[in-house]
Amino acid sequence: MELNQIVTSIQSKQEAIQSVYFVGCGGSKADLYPGFYFLRSNAKKLIVGHYTANEFNYDTPAAVGENSIVITCSLGGNTPETVKATSLAKSLGAHVIAVTHEPESPLTKDADYVVTHGFFESYSAKMDKMTKILTLAVEILNAFEGYDYYEQFMDGVEKIYGAIDEATKLLVPQAKAFGEAYKDAPVIYVMSSGATTEVAYSFSICLLLEMQWVNSGSFSDGEFFHGPFEIVEKDKPFLLLMNDGKTRPMDSRALDFLNRFEAKTTVVDAKDFGLANYVSKEVIDYFNPILISGVLRVYAEQLAIARKHPLTKRRYMWKLEY
Amino acid sequence: MELNQIVTSIQSKQEAIQSVYFVGCGGSKADLYPGFYFLRSNAKKLIVGHYTANEFNYDTPAAVGENSIVITCSLGGNTPETVKATSLAKSLGAHVIAVTHEPESPLTKDADYVVTHGFFESYSAKMDKMTKILTLAVEILNAFEGYDYYEQFMDGVEKIYGAIDEATKLLVPQAKAFGEAYKDAPVIYVMSSGATTEVAYSFSICLLLEMQWVNSGSFSDGEFFHGPFEIVEKDKPFLLLMNDGKTRPMDSRALDFLNRFEAKTTVVDAKDFGLANYVSKEVIDYFNPILISGVLRVYAEQLAIARKHPLTKRRYMWKLEY
Repeated sequence: MELNQIVTSIQSKQEAIQSVYFVGCGGSKADLYPGFYFLRSNAKKLIVGHYTANEFNYDTPAAVGENSIVITCSLGGNTPETVKATSLAKSLGAHVIAVTHEPESPLTKDADYVVTHGFFESYSAKMDKMTKILTLAVEILNAFEGYDYYEQFMDGVEKIYGAIDEATKLLVPQAKAFGEAYKDAPVIYVMSSGATTEVAYSFSICLLLEMQWVNSGSFSDGEFFHGPFEIVEKDKPFLLLMNDGKTRPMDSRALDFLNRFEAKTTVVDAKDFGLANYVSKEVIDYFNPILISGVLRVYAEQLAIARKHPLTKRRYMWKLEY
Repeated sequence: MELNQIVTSIQSKQEAIQSVYFVGCGGSKADLYPGFYFLRSNAKKLIVGHYTANEFNYDTPAAVGENSIVITCSLGGNTPETVKATSLAKSLGAHVIAVTHEPESPLTKDADYVVTHGFFESYSAKMDKMTKILTLAVEILNAFEGYDYYEQFMDGVEKIYGAIDEATKLLVPQAKAFGEAYKDAPVIYVMSSGATTEVAYSFSICLLLEMQWVNSGSFSDGEFFHGPFEIVEKDKPFLLLMNDGKTRPMDSRALDFLNRFEAKTTVVDAKDFGLANYVSKEVIDYFNPILISGVLRVYAEQLAIARKHPLTKRRYMWKLEY
């Protein structure tokens, strides 16, 4: 079923949708963020929530019910907390959409609708999950409140995968330089703003802490000046993800500060990859996380090579019960 | 004006409040979180948002208008981004409540209502800001949707300051042990769940990064098992804030894992301070961050003493323009 057909189907059952929840864990939670961010920014009537799955399970929002859409997401479809959230949402009468790479996984059992996405095929396929969730959010807004830039958005969706494949093609030298420069870093901070905020978060918790065992923290660059910036000194390792859109002044201000005090700063900037050539300005904000997250994979791979620590190496995950 | 009178006054002007936004930066943003969390959990109709101020300024939610209440917060009342958010919200027709220690500060200029709070007098006074914001959230829910546990909540407010003063009285030995054990830590991770999630965040970004220049990251313990736990090894420094309430199983699961792999773990547990003796179980979740954050100040002070790095020391803040 196409994404717009899913939303049309929900609308045919329940015209008065009042709330939309995005529920997942770790990298999947972060991949839900642009969809959440889009609705939170643009919806005038819808309640919108974004939860790590167990918090949704243990302290379920009172508004979840037959007037809710709950979007759950898990790459392999077997994250226990997210599977539980899917069943819980269903039992409360919500319209549940499960987003996963694995159509036959436990996540899909209690879901009303299943959205499958690519992942392993290419750099752009890795961003299919985030893009489809964002598109669901746009379809929901368009169906229930209307969205003026629907056409522009759909045009952007058609082009963003090509933008990622193009951007990643020539990226290895820069990414290799990043890997070499940061391979012995005792800690790496990651920052961004707007719809890209949780790309910084997921690079920190999934790529660095989980896959590289490198110490890391992340925060919005809106928050940087209210605490974290005091950690800056010469050669402190930072990775700054810069958006082409409304919150770019926040990114630029952070960059100025990092440069002023000679932090070791790597910038991944949507402008450098010509995002505006692919996506129109009315909707560009929401495509930044897709492009930047797609591109970051190359940086992670080169860091892994420089550190001789494969991205697949784990101490605990997949190895034991916890 | 009392907090309930502020909400009654708003209600007399605008019966159809549809959205409530909590806007601030850094420690103040974190102090807004329990109020946000309460409304997000309990409201059935209200849209609820929580923003770092410049994201509210640069990408203002479409729903902000005359049907909105915007609560802004800044300790000294002169955080430029939050002052700007206050004016912006006012210009959009929102009902704006400024929360600050300084009644004559720039933050209050464009606000419709001003709430002042204690801070410097005692450990419990430091939590007056968070408590008053949470109380505003409860008053808003009670006025616009009704709240079944209003009496229990207000009873808790009367007692929570005493609970903090009592808890902090005998705490120095434990806090001193924490300071000694963590004084040379190259990084400290901070975790919690539920309404206390941003207490972990603010301890990480304000107390550790800002006031101690100690590397740090923070995350929900719901997220811990989906990335960050791979950083755990013997003697890795963690600070775990445990709640007495619905999300305690999340805290306990994280503790079990930390103990199993012999991380260096300090637990600050609301149960150890008898929170349930002060606050009834229907509302206890929301008082955890108040008690725990109050208590953590003693830990921060002892860490500062052990590290010979006063909490007031800064490289950049208050010293230069940025």
